[in-house]
Amino acid sequence: MNERILSEDNKVLKRFFSLDNQTYQGGTLDTATKEMLGLVASMVLRCDDCIRYHLGRCNQQGISTKAIFEILAVANIVGGSICIPHTRRAVEYWDQLLAIESTSD
Amino acid sequence: MNERILSEDNKVLKRFFSLDNQTYQGGTLDTATKEMLGLVASMVLRCDDCIRYHLGRCNQQGISTKAIFEILAVANIVGGSICIPHTRRAVEYWDQLLAIESTSD
Amino acid sequence: MNERILSEDNKVLKRFFSLDNQTYQGGTLDTATKEMLGLVASMVLRCDDCIRYHLGRCNQQGISTKAIFEILAVANIVGGSICIPHTRRAVEYWDQLLAIESTSD
Amino acid sequence: MNERILSEDNKVLKRFFSLDNQTYQGGTLDTATKEMLGLVASMVLRCDDCIRYHLGRCNQQGISTKAIFEILAVANIVGGSICIPHTRRAVEYWDQLLAIESTSD
Amino acid sequence: MNERILSEDNKVLKRFFSLDNQTYQGGTLDTATKEMLGLVASMVLRCDDCIRYHLGRCNQQGISTKAIFEILAVANIVGGSICIPHTRRAVEYWDQLLAIESTSD
Amino acid sequence: MNERILSEDNKVLKRFFSLDNQTYQGGTLDTATKEMLGLVASMVLRCDDCIRYHLGRCNQQGISTKAIFEILAVANIVGGSICIPHTRRAVEYWDQLLAIESTSD
Repeated sequence: MNERILSEDNKVLKRFFSLDNQTYQGGTLDTATKEMLGLVASMVLRCDDCIRYHLGRCNQQGISTKAIFEILAVANIVGGSICIPHTRRAVEYWDQLLAIESTSD
Repeated sequence: MNERILSEDNKVLKRFFSLDNQTYQGGTLDTATKEMLGLVASMVLRCDDCIRYHLGRCNQQGISTKAIFEILAVANIVGGSICIPHTRRAVEYWDQLLAIESTSD
Repeated sequence: MNERILSEDNKVLKRFFSLDNQTYQGGTLDTATKEMLGLVASMVLRCDDCIRYHLGRCNQQGISTKAIFEILAVANIVGGSICIPHTRRAVEYWDQLLAIESTSD
Repeated sequence: MNERILSEDNKVLKRFFSLDNQTYQGGTLDTATKEMLGLVASMVLRCDDCIRYHLGRCNQQGISTKAIFEILAVANIVGGSICIPHTRRAVEYWDQLLAIESTSD
Repeated sequence: MNERILSEDNKVLKRFFSLDNQTYQGGTLDTATKEMLGLVASMVLRCDDCIRYHLGRCNQQGISTKAIFEILAVANIVGGSICIPHTRRAVEYWDQLLAIESTSD
Repeated sequence: MNERILSEDNKVLKRFFSLDNQTYQGGTLDTATKEMLGLVASMVLRCDDCIRYHLGRCNQQGISTKAIFEILAVANIVGGSICIPHTRRAVEYWDQLLAIESTSD
């Protein structure tokens, strides 16, 4: 779908999508830290697609399950119990990522 | 999924889940009133899972259909037309709860 | 300011402001309960002006301080620690309402 | 579902649903402009059902694909990357509307 | 303050601020329409600074008071009564803009 | 004000305030990382008091200005231009923290 959107040649959207990618590149903070920031922001704004995206990226960055749960804990305290259903779906998806990983070993 | 989350032994999440349960226990306000508060809060924050949870609890507390519609009305006025799709799904779920109840009589 | 807004004769805004008032009139649920619903909704949506408005109305309805704190507790659990600064300002305003009341006795 | 909701005879909800319809009627701004306003508001508040509703209405008003993308661009810049999944679903639905239209010609 | 922020040479922030400006340049939709979109988005997301910014730009684009009120009406219906305090501050600021304008004639 | 709130002996609020403090204690992730998570969450939820609180804590943790700007960049991209006024106030407050620090050396 991203290709379809970019094909329309709307300059603002194209530049924004490109900028979105640059945001998580390592700088003073490394990519792993930035992906954790992206995850907690997606959790408190409650977007399941964004949560899954950042969980996938956190998994690639080698972030541990214990760290993921600490991020989910921050999100639940800051964002409240309204985040609980998203927490359940996040943990379900994280477990799937770990299962895929252990199969491919 | 709650068991899976609690099994990870993240103290903040465990305590928050426990605290979430305590919140709706009767005090100066009874559980029925607190569940109505939980329902309207879930409506304006627009979380369908949370809405269904509190509708189920309101049903157990014997809250009437007329009262539920008055809560939904407050939610629509405070939260706006962006709550209308959640209102539709709330009423659909409420009618299912009533249907189950009348079957089990 | 409401008079200025209504003077412009925008029918949608006029009807919406009128509907907003009708929302809290007693029905199956009494005004006190509806004002508590308005307060918790304003808390989780984090609007200080709306919180103060509903605190004033709750005070007129004779709602106790213990009940107000239980409403704030529901709001903090559902809406998270992001509601804490609004909780502080709510309690400060509530105490002012009580002080005015005790002076006017 | 709207009929079910209106059948309950909750006056606030009935008037609010009616007012919601009046909002997009032509005035100083025409319906096309108001539907574009409804679309961008639904995008930044991230409600897929509302987005689809206003996309359907924008399509009936003859708004072009280029204009729709400019509205989505405003929404993404104001509302952030958290709107990207909604942007994808919006474009997918818009393309379906165009496909139906070209078939019915 | 923008200069201070840009002086730090954070590429993502610099590009985002620049992209934010490009968003409202005339394309298929003219700047006036895009500023109205920016205004309604700021209203439903309830940011007074953003509302004032877009009101100023709408004023420069020659948008009439009647049109502004129709935008505020859409915002109130979509976003709910939680937008009312922002509506009051928006109208107050708009009247100031008109007063400055009439003085400078 | 926290003392006033805790004096009321509402158990849910007391436990939630205590839990809020525990959330940022070092675990698998250290306090510095958790404070950065708290900052980005406060930014995208747009609460100036919370932002200032976490900026103060980030300053105590020795987080650099470059890192703070990278966190603000993530927040702006995820949360959109609606975060720009909060970004300005965040940078203004951060500069004050640095000024106080350099004076006290």
